[in-house]
Amino acid sequence: MRPVAILGIGQTNIDEQWDKSLREIGGEAALAAMHDAGMDKVDSLFVGNMLSSTISGQNQLGAFFADWIGLWKQEAVKVEAACASGAAALRAGLMAVSAGDIDSALVVGVEKMSDKTGHDVTSALATAADADYELEQGISFVGLNALIMRRYMHEFGWKHEDFAPFSINAHANAMHNPFARLHEKITVEKFEKSSMIATPINLLDASPTGDGAAAVVIVPAEKVASLTGKPRIVIAGSASATDSIAVHSRKDPMFLSAAHHSAKRAYDMAHVSPEDIDVFELHDAFTIMVALSLEACGFAERGQGVRLGLENGISLNGRVPVCTRGGLKARGHPVGATGIYQVVEVVQQLRGECGATQVDGARIGMAQNIGGSGATILTHILKAE
Amino acid sequence: MRPVAILGIGQTNIDEQWDKSLREIGGEAALAAMHDAGMDKVDSLFVGNMLSSTISGQNQLGAFFADWIGLWKQEAVKVEAACASGAAALRAGLMAVSAGDIDSALVVGVEKMSDKTGHDVTSALATAADADYELEQGISFVGLNALIMRRYMHEFGWKHEDFAPFSINAHANAMHNPFARLHEKITVEKFEKSSMIATPINLLDASPTGDGAAAVVIVPAEKVASLTGKPRIVIAGSASATDSIAVHSRKDPMFLSAAHHSAKRAYDMAHVSPEDIDVFELHDAFTIMVALSLEACGFAERGQGVRLGLENGISLNGRVPVCTRGGLKARGHPVGATGIYQVVEVVQQLRGECGATQVDGARIGMAQNIGGSGATILTHILKAE
Repeated sequence: MRPVAILGIGQTNIDEQWDKSLREIGGEAALAAMHDAGMDKVDSLFVGNMLSSTISGQNQLGAFFADWIGLWKQEAVKVEAACASGAAALRAGLMAVSAGDIDSALVVGVEKMSDKTGHDVTSALATAADADYELEQGISFVGLNALIMRRYMHEFGWKHEDFAPFSINAHANAMHNPFARLHEKITVEKFEKSSMIATPINLLDASPTGDGAAAVVIVPAEKVASLTGKPRIVIAGSASATDSIAVHSRKDPMFLSAAHHSAKRAYDMAHVSPEDIDVFELHDAFTIMVALSLEACGFAERGQGVRLGLENGISLNGRVPVCTRGGLKARGHPVGATGIYQVVEVVQQLRGECGATQVDGARIGMAQNIGGSGATILTHILKAE
Repeated sequence: MRPVAILGIGQTNIDEQWDKSLREIGGEAALAAMHDAGMDKVDSLFVGNMLSSTISGQNQLGAFFADWIGLWKQEAVKVEAACASGAAALRAGLMAVSAGDIDSALVVGVEKMSDKTGHDVTSALATAADADYELEQGISFVGLNALIMRRYMHEFGWKHEDFAPFSINAHANAMHNPFARLHEKITVEKFEKSSMIATPINLLDASPTGDGAAAVVIVPAEKVASLTGKPRIVIAGSASATDSIAVHSRKDPMFLSAAHHSAKRAYDMAHVSPEDIDVFELHDAFTIMVALSLEACGFAERGQGVRLGLENGISLNGRVPVCTRGGLKARGHPVGATGIYQVVEVVQQLRGECGATQVDGARIGMAQNIGGSGATILTHILKAE
């Protein structure tokens, strides 16, 4: 495989963007990334999206966006892996550039979720779960996560408030991210008093959805001049793994097997170990997922991920800074776009562009994107050279 | 890029399969391909599908099928490009194996369309068109093709019955394909008297949808032993191109620009020209598309594709045999699966397994898969070595 670098990044605000269409949101991030890369044409387009067919009545987003942003004639395709669609699109683009068949790829993660009512969006999101064996029972996506969280609390003896540091950290960091959905500091008291959604998951355990898009331009690393003034960001590790789609089919629903396997493959490919990771943009769709991700990726023992939050291990100067731009919890979770937001944020850290939430001396960063309740998980490791 | 070969193929009947679920149909083709390849495990799974989120309420088909067929832990993802989803999934798998990151990929195209009413399916299929600028006008997918066909007839002076050979050829060949949706010979008289759908497209101009799945296993060509008794089938050319998603935005709606560009790239990559193609599985969703494909790929002059049918150029011993297993018209068109059916059929030709519809001495075959009304088009060229 020839090495590949990220040359440009772009992103939009995450919000209820009533004045902008799916087209406009995706186009805005795409053009921002191309501008950042200093390119006005790329060989190919890979779009990560989960919901446009159900919410916007629009499929074939590859050609749809290639048309809109002027990539006429170029190759374009959509990749879908539920909430891991963004990272899955990046990996598809990476493979094509690595193979040598194309020399540049624009990867866009995009989601427009506000055009339907909450009920319709909940139904659309539920397509990430097993339609035959989970949804037929009437459970929602947050319900599945609630079952896992309750069992975890029972098994390992944690109280609900022990998860508060994950959300507090994310909200604090999002204060400094102009693209974030939420700009509001929270406290343990506020966390505990928040409205219940599906016990034990309350509103401040859960990430807000929204409309948004993020994009990166990737090219062969050898084509990136070393003297641009910015560090060269290479994709040193990339891996994808799956687990059973239905939670009840897993040997241990409290272990993210696909996170473990994709992280292990990515570490091996990048020749690093968890100790080497300076910043980790993880998939905190719900606070329970922070604990499970930290455990599966080797940052905490089984059942002890929560402790890392309580002991200040996830803050900007902690053992493994997470959600440095707000995470899904406060930056927001426009589902198919999230995986690209994570990668964009890791690039910002490695470039030293994060201001008040910059991790000092960050050289190696990891992004992990989860589809469904852990069924598809992709891990990417970036290095600044 | 390291060369890649197709080691195994599998397919299901195309029909209204009321007794089988999405899971079972896709799984059946997948396991058949792995059996044909003599493998019980592969590194990765790429699924081509267009409609499962709207029709079956199921997204994340990568993990969904990996789980069902026992590819636990393995990488899996879904690729979507409307009716070109199958070929787009093949190309994604091809890039990953070519890059060297994985050593084998199972590519499954699958569609389960019978679980909704005709009205719902028509709406779901319409998501391949431009939701903002075409669907808002109330036009259906067949309506868009009817506009193109009418203009083509006007522009080049063809009558409706001139298109009959395309359907007659497809139906005749499908008689010998046990997996085909339709086993019924037709005549010019029957073609002309068929029920009108959207003038000038009648029922025998249009392909039937259905439930079905097809699959291939791909591996590095160097890993295929030369003495298996079967010829080694390599993917010698692969390319994807796009055009504007809305038909009205094209400079010339009667020229399949994306077919032209993807075919040209595939010819160049495979070091062949149209004269070298022994068999061409093209995307005859409607008879007009046969004419436009033949013209765009260099088999006929502009406006003269129809002549190739009238002058016996597309039959088994013609200049370019097409739809040798029945094509979309009679084998059937389970939309996201179609691109893989085409590739499976080319492999059958190159292996010499087609019995009564075998093209003598076929060594080089081409498959072309169209998404939307020409917005995404992929061309693959296979060679028997």
